[in-house]
Amino acid sequence: MGAKKALYIIKVGGHVIDDSATLHEFLKAFKRLKGLKILVHGGGKTATEIAHDLGIEAKLVHGRRITDIESLRVVTMVYAGLINKNLVAQLQAIRCNAIGLSGADGNMIQARKRIFTDIDYGFVGDLDQQLIHINNLTLLLENGLVPVFSAITHDGKGQLLNTNADTIASILARALSKQYDTQLIYCFDKKGVLLDVNDDNSLLSEINPERFEHLKSNGLIADGMIPKLENAFQAIADGVKVVYIGKADELDQLNTSFGTKLIP
Amino acid sequence: MGAKKALYIIKVGGHVIDDSATLHEFLKAFKRLKGLKILVHGGGKTATEIAHDLGIEAKLVHGRRITDIESLRVVTMVYAGLINKNLVAQLQAIRCNAIGLSGADGNMIQARKRIFTDIDYGFVGDLDQQLIHINNLTLLLENGLVPVFSAITHDGKGQLLNTNADTIASILARALSKQYDTQLIYCFDKKGVLLDVNDDNSLLSEINPERFEHLKSNGLIADGMIPKLENAFQAIADGVKVVYIGKADELDQLNTSFGTKLIP
Repeated sequence: MGAKKALYIIKVGGHVIDDSATLHEFLKAFKRLKGLKILVHGGGKTATEIAHDLGIEAKLVHGRRITDIESLRVVTMVYAGLINKNLVAQLQAIRCNAIGLSGADGNMIQARKRIFTDIDYGFVGDLDQQLIHINNLTLLLENGLVPVFSAITHDGKGQLLNTNADTIASILARALSKQYDTQLIYCFDKKGVLLDVNDDNSLLSEINPERFEHLKSNGLIADGMIPKLENAFQAIADGVKVVYIGKADELDQLNTSFGTKLIP
Repeated sequence: MGAKKALYIIKVGGHVIDDSATLHEFLKAFKRLKGLKILVHGGGKTATEIAHDLGIEAKLVHGRRITDIESLRVVTMVYAGLINKNLVAQLQAIRCNAIGLSGADGNMIQARKRIFTDIDYGFVGDLDQQLIHINNLTLLLENGLVPVFSAITHDGKGQLLNTNADTIASILARALSKQYDTQLIYCFDKKGVLLDVNDDNSLLSEINPERFEHLKSNGLIADGMIPKLENAFQAIADGVKVVYIGKADELDQLNTSFGTKLIP
């Protein structure tokens, strides 16, 4: 048996989704990656804006966003419809044979509605390696298609669920790393893990779990970054070969100098 | 070479999309069809309602709906997102391995933005047999997946286009009939072609192109029915084996007595 094929799983979120010029450059860099590829995308600000226009205001309990049935409708429309299909059309325009998916499609990513103890988060899906069904996904990959996932999953009983896109990228990487030499790349608005969030020169070129814990306990890692890094370290622990976190519009520097490399 | 495999292409539109109990029965009947299957769906009233809630009113010129950029965003959200993913989740719940698609996905259905002479219809796609790429579609079918198409296509240059779902069903049937014994079934709110639209007993069990032209010239075919029948007769002319038009909630009677059969 030969070496495993290379697979890139790229998560993209943040303002790049909303900025068409930056997005176009990002998609061109994505297309140029040599190997099998999966794109997982977040929602940008569009879902919030459309919810607002529909008179649906974000519901927060103890600072956490709640996905009630109205909010679920909006994220399904915006993530799985508007953003997903526009990404696919733009990738097709540069001859990247994208196929847009939610986790419900081909039952590739099933989730469990989050069990609430103190807070009812609503229609939010939690992932479980046991509920990832990769056969149809590898069928697409092996036939030259480029899956583009929105962060909508389902419970297998007819209910769609809003799911964290970072976690989807991580669990797909973990599930596929047995079969492929998998690189998981988180692309967002910052250059990577910064010691000072306002200073790009404070970029860490590498981070390991010990350093992460140390920085976290000293309050030096931004709140939004913590789950992202936890997902990333989980991926490494589960056999994903390489994990980076960096800036979406620097993706073309992936093989030279890109963001922060997560190391075991 | 053996006989060609059976393929059902079912178009569903009208109120069944909006009525969850009827939809559930329809999807169960769809699932029970023995053979390869494709579902093509319209939008129901949801798109109109959401557009209204967003303050986007339907624009009509000479009685024809115009898809401006705002309307395109709404139909992309509602058809390719909300409705498509809910149909997929519901099919998955009854163990039908659905995969939701737009024409942009896998570049399966490319279209041309309609050239306007008198009226600019906006972002509306016209279909052309030459722009249907079935390889990825047969890949899915042959691997046990059930494609579910929303009526959103793309122009191959990054632009999504609103497209007639009846025409999508027809052109897919025509493209696939070379390879499969294809049955094209239009499901809507009426029992089929009725001589008197208010009398179910006036159902025609069969109709051929001559009768259609005769009824049309006598004003006995409702306006909305004309393009549907034209699509259907085009499919027969291009080699589709069987075409029916009938009521969505009678789909389980397809092999006994269902709607109006279109004959050459």
